[in-house]
Amino acid sequence: MIQPVILCGGAGTRLWPESRGHRAKQFLPLAGSESLFQQTVKRTPAGARFAPPMILCGTAHVPAVREQMGDQSALLIVEPLPRGTAGAIALAVAQADPDALLLVMPSDQVITDLPAFHAAIERGVELAQHDWIVTFGIAPDRPDTGFGYIASGTALGDKGFAVERFVEKPPLEEAKRMLAAGGFSWNAGIFLFRAGRMRDAMLARCPTIFVAARDALATGTVDGDALHPDPQEFGHAPSDSIDYAVLECDDRVAVVPVSMGWSDLGSWHAVQLLAAKDAMGNAAMGDVFLHGSSNNLIRAGGRRVSIVGMSDVAVVVDGDDILVISLACSQDVRAAAKAREI
Amino acid sequence: MIQPVILCGGAGTRLWPESRGHRAKQFLPLAGSESLFQQTVKRTPAGARFAPPMILCGTAHVPAVREQMGDQSALLIVEPLPRGTAGAIALAVAQADPDALLLVMPSDQVITDLPAFHAAIERGVELAQHDWIVTFGIAPDRPDTGFGYIASGTALGDKGFAVERFVEKPPLEEAKRMLAAGGFSWNAGIFLFRAGRMRDAMLARCPTIFVAARDALATGTVDGDALHPDPQEFGHAPSDSIDYAVLECDDRVAVVPVSMGWSDLGSWHAVQLLAAKDAMGNAAMGDVFLHGSSNNLIRAGGRRVSIVGMSDVAVVVDGDDILVISLACSQDVRAAAKAREI
Repeated sequence: MIQPVILCGGAGTRLWPESRGHRAKQFLPLAGSESLFQQTVKRTPAGARFAPPMILCGTAHVPAVREQMGDQSALLIVEPLPRGTAGAIALAVAQADPDALLLVMPSDQVITDLPAFHAAIERGVELAQHDWIVTFGIAPDRPDTGFGYIASGTALGDKGFAVERFVEKPPLEEAKRMLAAGGFSWNAGIFLFRAGRMRDAMLARCPTIFVAARDALATGTVDGDALHPDPQEFGHAPSDSIDYAVLECDDRVAVVPVSMGWSDLGSWHAVQLLAAKDAMGNAAMGDVFLHGSSNNLIRAGGRRVSIVGMSDVAVVVDGDDILVISLACSQDVRAAAKAREI
Repeated sequence: MIQPVILCGGAGTRLWPESRGHRAKQFLPLAGSESLFQQTVKRTPAGARFAPPMILCGTAHVPAVREQMGDQSALLIVEPLPRGTAGAIALAVAQADPDALLLVMPSDQVITDLPAFHAAIERGVELAQHDWIVTFGIAPDRPDTGFGYIASGTALGDKGFAVERFVEKPPLEEAKRMLAAGGFSWNAGIFLFRAGRMRDAMLARCPTIFVAARDALATGTVDGDALHPDPQEFGHAPSDSIDYAVLECDDRVAVVPVSMGWSDLGSWHAVQLLAAKDAMGNAAMGDVFLHGSSNNLIRAGGRRVSIVGMSDVAVVVDGDDILVISLACSQDVRAAAKAREI
């Protein structure tokens, strides 16, 4: 039995204006008719192999989680303060049985090849049972500077590799070099480990975080299927990512390579690449008129959008906000999000 | 005393979505805070030199004309049916004293150098008094295919030139050739003539149009300062342009060259060229955020528009309509206007 742990943190400002405030990226139907969160929940259906999920989310996202979960059972752990992926995972680890296998997944990704994902999980299980902390590595198909990279070391049978080192989001030249060299994969932010193994690693590497999480749960409140860790106790934890706090300094981390149609939808460009398109390469949602235009992403948001003579552009309408952005610059949407959301 | 005749026909679909239906291009503040129609009226202020204008407009535009005229005096001639510039001018000619000098002006143009315009009118007056039908020619600064061209012939003293021939909107190659050759100017659609001279020309060249206009006025109704020519009588006139119906086949047409900061604002590109811009060449109206973007025209229409990494584009918001168009393709807006306004 594997315990899915779904992380719902993150504001997803790179997909502004649709993603903002209470309605973060993971709760939007950005690829298909269901939200990324709903797709994530469905990926590990509660049954013989997977337990009902633990869902880590901030207070602001509780209504969205409840609405999108419907009557599916889950344990909500409401983060009283944002403390990074290390803080969220510490709460899950402190709550879980030490012998449970935790499968940590971000809630804002797309995986199109589910059998490949499940097969990779099974390979990871064998490593996790031998006290490896398992990451899943995506084969890079471009020198993307938006991801962390993992260098594979010694092979661990046919299950995966020991991680030689982690490479933070690299400059373009280094990304190109790694792509050419081979043996590197993208860090998808999906992890599998025994809860007790991660607890011990945290007590060794970032004890303040783990103790804060444990104490916050002990002194928190329970409201039906939701745990509310104590804000004051949890506030003692510094905010950190699990990569920095544990993985990069632990010497028993494995990577399981997997090719599963993965995308983190980290930009409107990524959404465009994944979307269904017409013969001209346009992905249009809503009332959109196109003339002499190709390779665009248009999301009309209830209004009427007319596009003439445009290529490689995203137009996203949300309420009174209209974003027009070159797909090549789609990371720069943060500038607009920052200016508009203050 | 010169009698201004202001033509308010034309839907201005090339400036869709702002220009449409009852709110045509000429009634919009597309260059400055006053509408193009208001600027046209101001160009020949009623006084010693100019009589109060005759205004030719369709039924749908009467409210806009009245609202924008305020308490300025004018004679409205309401075209019961659209019959082209020939039909509209025939109404003005039939209504005017045969010895009056009529100055016919479209209502949807920009002229930034008013003294130059007035000086050209005075040169034209001397020719019109000698029974020339006078056109005004704009020196072309680019091989524009959206205008008719006028070839200058014999000089008429220092006043202007006899027109050698008119060239219809040319293909690009011919436009380039004319620009290189010199001696060609754009037909601005501004005309000056004695009413009796034009009446005679119409009776010779297009008698059906003139007779229909005259009979429609004779059997029409008067409502204060507005004439309502009879629709049935006026309907006998075919629809035609004054260029086709008269000018191209009359042998006493003159062109007065004038450099007066003229633009017909015939596209969003033309509006962009004329607009006040920031250091990056962006012309923005309303709540606009720009990042890494240059040489754009953004009209936010009461919404919030954010532009990232875009160049040479127009974004025009009007109600629920959002147009995003490459400035280089700005004539193609008609495709969108047609699709949206059915």
